[in-house]
Amino acid sequence: MHFITLLTDFGTADGFVGEVKGELLTRAPGATLIDIGHDIRPGDVIAASWALERIWDRFPEGTIHLVVIDPGGGGSRRGVIAHIAGRWYVGPDNGTLTRVLGHHEAEEVRELEVAPDPDPGRPSSRTFHGRDVFAPAAARLAAGDSPAVLGTLRDPAELVRFATPAPVRHGDSVRGSVTHIDRFGNLVTDIPARSLTPSALIEIGGEVVSGLRSTYASVESDALVALVGSTGMLEISVRDGSAAERLGVERGHTVYARPERD
Amino acid sequence: MHFITLLTDFGTADGFVGEVKGELLTRAPGATLIDIGHDIRPGDVIAASWALERIWDRFPEGTIHLVVIDPGGGGSRRGVIAHIAGRWYVGPDNGTLTRVLGHHEAEEVRELEVAPDPDPGRPSSRTFHGRDVFAPAAARLAAGDSPAVLGTLRDPAELVRFATPAPVRHGDSVRGSVTHIDRFGNLVTDIPARSLTPSALIEIGGEVVSGLRSTYASVESDALVALVGSTGMLEISVRDGSAAERLGVERGHTVYARPERD
Amino acid sequence: MHFITLLTDFGTADGFVGEVKGELLTRAPGATLIDIGHDIRPGDVIAASWALERIWDRFPEGTIHLVVIDPGGGGSRRGVIAHIAGRWYVGPDNGTLTRVLGHHEAEEVRELEVAPDPDPGRPSSRTFHGRDVFAPAAARLAAGDSPAVLGTLRDPAELVRFATPAPVRHGDSVRGSVTHIDRFGNLVTDIPARSLTPSALIEIGGEVVSGLRSTYASVESDALVALVGSTGMLEISVRDGSAAERLGVERGHTVYARPERD
Repeated sequence: MHFITLLTDFGTADGFVGEVKGELLTRAPGATLIDIGHDIRPGDVIAASWALERIWDRFPEGTIHLVVIDPGGGGSRRGVIAHIAGRWYVGPDNGTLTRVLGHHEAEEVRELEVAPDPDPGRPSSRTFHGRDVFAPAAARLAAGDSPAVLGTLRDPAELVRFATPAPVRHGDSVRGSVTHIDRFGNLVTDIPARSLTPSALIEIGGEVVSGLRSTYASVESDALVALVGSTGMLEISVRDGSAAERLGVERGHTVYARPERD
Repeated sequence: MHFITLLTDFGTADGFVGEVKGELLTRAPGATLIDIGHDIRPGDVIAASWALERIWDRFPEGTIHLVVIDPGGGGSRRGVIAHIAGRWYVGPDNGTLTRVLGHHEAEEVRELEVAPDPDPGRPSSRTFHGRDVFAPAAARLAAGDSPAVLGTLRDPAELVRFATPAPVRHGDSVRGSVTHIDRFGNLVTDIPARSLTPSALIEIGGEVVSGLRSTYASVESDALVALVGSTGMLEISVRDGSAAERLGVERGHTVYARPERD
Repeated sequence: MHFITLLTDFGTADGFVGEVKGELLTRAPGATLIDIGHDIRPGDVIAASWALERIWDRFPEGTIHLVVIDPGGGGSRRGVIAHIAGRWYVGPDNGTLTRVLGHHEAEEVRELEVAPDPDPGRPSSRTFHGRDVFAPAAARLAAGDSPAVLGTLRDPAELVRFATPAPVRHGDSVRGSVTHIDRFGNLVTDIPARSLTPSALIEIGGEVVSGLRSTYASVESDALVALVGSTGMLEISVRDGSAAERLGVERGHTVYARPERD
């Protein structure tokens, strides 16, 4: 039976996640549900895309990733099922897939029909597609229904993507940006390990960090440290503290990496 | 095997939820545990009742809803098992069922005996009935024990309920109240869709919203919007923002709906 | 198949927990994953140890507790597998086991080798051992691999422990300390029930509480109450409020218990 992962911005105090889980398990009682997290900042499609990129192919092929970050709650954006590198995405077509699509082409994309009302006593809503459209579709996939019955084939090139400017090389230095700030206040950038030398100078938020270390523990408590993080990208951190707070930096902030000069 | 859902105010930093899950799986290793959420505000029975109403019958018949929001932690309130619309409730009898009972009669209610101490080396507590009374009872239900061995039959009419004042009609307008404020700052009211016209004027917190829209995305960012939400009730929201913050409104606040006048 | 519990400080907004779950289920698709919680304060090994003590043997023998609170993220601390009272610990050797070891001897301890890179296209990180070292080890244990192939035998006495000063008796009074502050603001101490009389005077943060009650509900709202909590230890609480806020007390604060005097 299938794994269905859940990534949402629903929080865990209102019962929304429970409604989705109930719809899933009623239709696919043998599915295994896996919480990725429900604490994406409301409507933050960019943060969801970053988290989804991390987990996408850590799960076995056949896994269904049900991802509902849906600012506007319904509205005119499409709902889609997408098959990418052997896993399924079910959710709004609003850019959440952007980072995954940077690694893999979509093999198949279908536009979901809004599910017909299954119960006249409890009509489908126009605002909670997570419960009324995406969960039923994910459950039917998990239960073995053909994707073909769930929606109409679309061109994968049409999937909505947000802009992800690549790092830019100026002579021997690289200018990139902060793509994510995590729970620990670590600044994850888009500068890959291969663009860095061990003695690189990293400049961000008015500070310069000299040289890359191998772990956060390579410096003293409260010191800034630059390293290649678990995504394979340059990361700036404060040991036992928050680099985001220390440097007053937000997502999108510019970072420079250049070879040590004498 | 049974689904056991968990809804508590335990948070997820202290291990309390883990203790409950351990007791459940030790006694009913084949049960499937489903987190509804553990972030109900401490002791907020009213919020728990609202979440429980949403999820109650989204799960298949036979599901056991283990719900522990227990202000006072033990005390003199009863513990109950209740069979309602084919699902089971296990938890304190303190009003959490109020909103579910607005839809369905309880078919069977039993007062739980405080579980006898199963292990002299680890006595039951008098304060953590979630772990020591309710989890064992839920596990025994899941494992197939007859409810009759778990407690004494009681009159369903005795179940504790908090007051839920119905909306009041004055001429052609309706006065209701905010029953829940969700993670997004949406104000969910008790005025049902059938009491509203598409061009209704909604008055709350000193502002008037004109007409109902179909989704949050039907207005511009930061604008107030009124719509029928996913519970089938009138909801007031701010697109990409919090209506609760914008209007300075708390649960219980009055809301008026009246037909458009010229 | 095995239960694998997860206790981390990863939060639930970044996808880190999802990466770990993906690695577990890819290697041990039949394992049952159980979230204990991911909201341990970043790097707070002491809080994790307290939560782990609570849950350790609530789960059946054979359960694998995957616990990753890893300040410094890698660094020089060892990774270990430990077999204690029939359950397994997999995680950093940094003191997290301290409180469990206060109850049970470790039967077997192995130092984990850092897992060899399984996929040249996606190298193991040096900072996210939860995903790259501990999850693979836990999954292999769950899948039936012998612990002997996962690491080298070590002396259980070498396991890192933090200091846990015992309560001190002065004449007929006992001086202890606050070992944990929970979500409800309850102050859990290290003074066991057997050191207390029902009419004991409890002194903490400049206030004196007279006599032990049986539940939080034994006093009026907003009143201080002392009782034996669900760990079997003295606990100081405020009904419907936070004792930590009321008394301005943090973990480690001194508490005195003495018999009532006339």
